[in-house]
Amino acid sequence: MDMLSQERLLHNFNAMKEFTDTEDGITRLAFSDEDWRAREFIIGLMKKAGLAVRSDSFGNLIGRREGSDPAADVVMFGSHIDSVPKGGNFDGVMGVLASIEVINWLNENNFVSENPLEVVVFMAEESSRFGAANLGSRAFCGTLTSPELDALVDDMGISLADMLRYRGLDPALLATAKYTGKIKSFIEIHIEQGKLLEAAGKQIGIVTGIAAPTRLKIILAGDADHSGATPMHLRHDGLCAAAEIILLVETLAKEAKGQLVGTVGAIQVSPGVMNVIPGRVELGVDIRSISMPAKVHMVKLLLPKIKEIAAQRDIPVHIKTIVNETPVIIQEMVQDALINICKEADYSYMKLPSGAGHDAMHLAAFAPTGMIFIPCKGGISHNPAESASMEHIVAATDVLYQVICKLSQKEFSWKQSV
Amino acid sequence: MDMLSQERLLHNFNAMKEFTDTEDGITRLAFSDEDWRAREFIIGLMKKAGLAVRSDSFGNLIGRREGSDPAADVVMFGSHIDSVPKGGNFDGVMGVLASIEVINWLNENNFVSENPLEVVVFMAEESSRFGAANLGSRAFCGTLTSPELDALVDDMGISLADMLRYRGLDPALLATAKYTGKIKSFIEIHIEQGKLLEAAGKQIGIVTGIAAPTRLKIILAGDADHSGATPMHLRHDGLCAAAEIILLVETLAKEAKGQLVGTVGAIQVSPGVMNVIPGRVELGVDIRSISMPAKVHMVKLLLPKIKEIAAQRDIPVHIKTIVNETPVIIQEMVQDALINICKEADYSYMKLPSGAGHDAMHLAAFAPTGMIFIPCKGGISHNPAESASMEHIVAATDVLYQVICKLSQKEFSWKQSV
Repeated sequence: MDMLSQERLLHNFNAMKEFTDTEDGITRLAFSDEDWRAREFIIGLMKKAGLAVRSDSFGNLIGRREGSDPAADVVMFGSHIDSVPKGGNFDGVMGVLASIEVINWLNENNFVSENPLEVVVFMAEESSRFGAANLGSRAFCGTLTSPELDALVDDMGISLADMLRYRGLDPALLATAKYTGKIKSFIEIHIEQGKLLEAAGKQIGIVTGIAAPTRLKIILAGDADHSGATPMHLRHDGLCAAAEIILLVETLAKEAKGQLVGTVGAIQVSPGVMNVIPGRVELGVDIRSISMPAKVHMVKLLLPKIKEIAAQRDIPVHIKTIVNETPVIIQEMVQDALINICKEADYSYMKLPSGAGHDAMHLAAFAPTGMIFIPCKGGISHNPAESASMEHIVAATDVLYQVICKLSQKEFSWKQSV
Repeated sequence: MDMLSQERLLHNFNAMKEFTDTEDGITRLAFSDEDWRAREFIIGLMKKAGLAVRSDSFGNLIGRREGSDPAADVVMFGSHIDSVPKGGNFDGVMGVLASIEVINWLNENNFVSENPLEVVVFMAEESSRFGAANLGSRAFCGTLTSPELDALVDDMGISLADMLRYRGLDPALLATAKYTGKIKSFIEIHIEQGKLLEAAGKQIGIVTGIAAPTRLKIILAGDADHSGATPMHLRHDGLCAAAEIILLVETLAKEAKGQLVGTVGAIQVSPGVMNVIPGRVELGVDIRSISMPAKVHMVKLLLPKIKEIAAQRDIPVHIKTIVNETPVIIQEMVQDALINICKEADYSYMKLPSGAGHDAMHLAAFAPTGMIFIPCKGGISHNPAESASMEHIVAATDVLYQVICKLSQKEFSWKQSV
């Protein structure tokens, strides 16, 4: 990898920093103006790299580099460009920029692939805006349903369907976003968003499985009374009940001893002012594990205890399961092929699970799928302090380049590589 | 009191219902368009009742009915018209409409007062918008300071000074809002906002003291990390710390056994989304009592325990005291005079403290001050379900009328009445 490549990557990372709604970190919510401008920039990069760019009906971008056998199965790689509020410049973006850079290297090396190559940019990977994640990759895999487009609504009351229309996309054509070609393999590179690689001092992480979220919405219907005139024993304080539930989620997750994590990240309190006892309170609970039984066990413990907390305060409670996804196991043959590349190129590596969800989860149902991680500083992600080193980015890009070169030859199959 | 009066009051209450930003209850935040339109309506009612209406530099309305001795001390009564978000149609409004109705009765009875009478409508009684209460009556009493006009900022970042300017009022003239006349007495009637009158089946409450708030802002600087990739033992979850504090406030307030109430009504969580561990969390704590020592004791217990909770989670914490007001004791001579009126008119009554704060607190420092309560249904206030009966409203208006008639004669002093 030459200096040109490093400069190009650095330039593109810096350019992506500008597409944000806030100065404190990156805020590029799905389908926002910032997201759409960033998408335009990425389209430009893809075209410059010679890719034939198309958008599906959900706005997912597909940039194709034709193979010498256009009818052969497609080798696919990519990630996403949307962010959480006040997030970082690497989550998702690193995978997209590295994928485009791989195309540049192929071009510069006059590499002829037999299989067609496609770089994919999935829309709305983060759940921050619409409360559900991987919407683009789900549309791409045909598992996002039309009713969801109307049901998923952001904080301002805008539905996903409305937002698609606003972007000139037709929600009625959702089904056409389903990818109909045959995918030979899907590879995604991403920052770890955890501390394991950094702690172990490794350059590359080979992902063994992807934790999937189970998400609950808990609605407590307390009574909004005057905070001065209502004695303590006559209150039905929704926020006090919520506080007990927040600590319960933490306690149960800790008791699972590393098998899962549990978080209450979102809370809405009505009316939410100093002089009124909180009435209606909504909590968003996020439980993640690479073990489905561990998640099922946690939910089984959690639900009756939430009902007990609400009952003791005489507060009606409503619990909805928003998401209940199955964790993904990465096939050993894919892991082994990636490990071989690391060994040959002398990159230090380790196997590790992904605590975060990724678009790759959904692709895994359709094709052998691999994920390559690099360390991020302090394990910090979804935060303005998110940071990754150019050295690690280049190493991961090289691993991706090498695996794409192999995959793009028709005679290569994962099994041969081990 | 005749049918005309009842009809007039009912008509005015219905008219006031229209000045709201929401359909679910009344939302008329201080200095909002809704508040300003309601104020215009009230100016109209005052003028129709023959009052000479003026506004001070804070927007407080003063409607004067001249006395036969214009130089005599002023007899003053009134309340406020702003509301909490999704509040009711009686909090404040009842006192304003009843005060204007008292003027109508005096006019209809051709009553000549010796002392001048002034109906006052205080701006910004509720703390919902700017986080501090009784702003109008504090300006009126000369205890609101210029720096506060800039420091008090609403959720949209608009300062109180900006809002005054927007309404054509000059923040530089704040000092001129201080009332310079001599006040003989101030009387405010209000809904109880508690359940004591209803439970006792009484028509009228004679207020013995007004609880005053102590308000704290607690800022927890947790770490906003990825909710999937950060193990439980490496988290600094601001919301979990906040949950412990919310329950601590509740526990300590309960342990005070009726001496005070404590509420966490306001919470802001950043970034506040499903897939990020909460980092920065701000809590608004409201502690109220008619006993200053009880409040001081609670704060003394609370502060070290909050610091302990934060320290155990290794989360920096910052605690600010926003408000620390002294409770007001209503003078016995005023209570007794109001009780005599209830006895003579055969209204059932009881003495009770006011858990809620009122503009009357501030007036009490300048003149003998009385408060008359009526029951509200279920004790519910600051809620769309807030409700009061016309029978009770009319009874309170009658008590106010009678005490104003007495006060408006120069020879009357509170001591004579007992």
